[in-house]
Amino acid sequence: MNILPQKERAELLRRFHYDSSMLVLPNVWDAASARIVEQAGGRAVATSSSGVAAALGYNDGQKISREMLIETIERITRVVACPVTADIEAGYGRSLEEVLDTVRAVIAAGAVGINIEDSSQWEQGTLVDVAYQTKLLQSLRTLGNELDMPLVINARIDVFLKRIGEPEERLEHAVRRANAYLQAGADCVYPIGWLDLDTISKLVKAIEGPVNILAGFPDLALADLERTSVARVSFGGFLTSSTLGHMRAVAREIFELGTLTKMHADSLSNAEFNALYSRD
Amino acid sequence: MNILPQKERAELLRRFHYDSSMLVLPNVWDAASARIVEQAGGRAVATSSSGVAAALGYNDGQKISREMLIETIERITRVVACPVTADIEAGYGRSLEEVLDTVRAVIAAGAVGINIEDSSQWEQGTLVDVAYQTKLLQSLRTLGNELDMPLVINARIDVFLKRIGEPEERLEHAVRRANAYLQAGADCVYPIGWLDLDTISKLVKAIEGPVNILAGFPDLALADLERTSVARVSFGGFLTSSTLGHMRAVAREIFELGTLTKMHADSLSNAEFNALYSRD
Repeated sequence: MNILPQKERAELLRRFHYDSSMLVLPNVWDAASARIVEQAGGRAVATSSSGVAAALGYNDGQKISREMLIETIERITRVVACPVTADIEAGYGRSLEEVLDTVRAVIAAGAVGINIEDSSQWEQGTLVDVAYQTKLLQSLRTLGNELDMPLVINARIDVFLKRIGEPEERLEHAVRRANAYLQAGADCVYPIGWLDLDTISKLVKAIEGPVNILAGFPDLALADLERTSVARVSFGGFLTSSTLGHMRAVAREIFELGTLTKMHADSLSNAEFNALYSRD
Repeated sequence: MNILPQKERAELLRRFHYDSSMLVLPNVWDAASARIVEQAGGRAVATSSSGVAAALGYNDGQKISREMLIETIERITRVVACPVTADIEAGYGRSLEEVLDTVRAVIAAGAVGINIEDSSQWEQGTLVDVAYQTKLLQSLRTLGNELDMPLVINARIDVFLKRIGEPEERLEHAVRRANAYLQAGADCVYPIGWLDLDTISKLVKAIEGPVNILAGFPDLALADLERTSVARVSFGGFLTSSTLGHMRAVAREIFELGTLTKMHADSLSNAEFNALYSRD
């Protein structure tokens, strides 16, 4: 279900990073969640690696196979018209060439953007060298050019998430990586972590391109992020956790009280459910 | 993730139909929803064909492939310890032999029960002959015996759902089919539809075996169904609709108000989300 050609969807997604309004991506994990987010007003949909893994029965961290990742992306791009960007973790490959193979398959599956992280797959709690990551990002950019596909690359920086080095050095470390990744061809950088607004503000000022921030924390207002000139926010596994929590609340109410209050509170009507995949 | 051998899980599921308390099945559609329902207290999990189809990006009614059906069952049985019963609609086959092939694959995927319906795949709005369906049910029972697998067969009766014949004749028609299906080897029968308590009571009295009723309607209390000696209730697509509606409400709140109240209301904590697939 695609109205614009894939190349134009990629260009559209890139433009969203320069809009006056912040790009807001409540991450999805299957066709239904993607379609719901699109219907609710999503300009693009982004997948969550933890959400995709959970739906398939796995923990996060490249526990699913590359085939399962690609299949999930195909099922999402089949039903939404908006641009789709895929969280591919560290790239599902043991070498740069294998990561490029993954991205070729991700593009063939209809995605127009990727998240790629700099956590090491080989050594827990460490990041890959900046030199490796910039070479990878350059190669991804070259791959996009070869395919005539302006792939939107969101380069994740895991300095805060993985607590690399001393706390007082992390900001500068993240900025250094961010600017190197942008220089290498990333369209956006994503210093993931539970960050306060002051740190976010410093990051946005020092980073020479669009910044993606992890939203979903109760104490981090979207309006504040927008005022801080954050280009894009995504929600990691928050929408998945919320949805699973809703299911749990509904199921517990049924089992323990025998009532259906939560089940019906915000439910789709039968007609809405049946029309999920019919275009308006 | 199975603690009991498959045969014992089948016997357990069958026994639930004769328990003093009604078997309550809020139907699931993927590994995560199955695990959540099990954690919330589900004694068994049942899949919803409309839910499974929606998660994969399709409408209900055998629009997904048999392979997708089997894969979904495998992903669910891999992560839950309780018995799993699968909605296989009309059996994903053009002939009795093909339906038996489907059921062989469903058992190989780890399910111990099935729902099979008597709506015709060939002629919209009609049911298959009672003779065909009883032969099919007998063949399924024989297949179970050959595999030493006491498959729990829930035979759906679509007289009310498909509005077959005159309204005043439906009750008798449904009872006639129900008793024929039980005689042919069904363990439970499922006259699906939006039924009032009086009709349900008459059905339960006239049917010579366990009866499954569709729950989830706001005006049909679970306590009343239990008092009416209904053996089992399932929820069709209600939990899926509810969950999609929750996602929609969360996404709309984010897009329109920029707040996260609904997202956090019943959410799993991060620790709970990460522990979804670790056994307690």
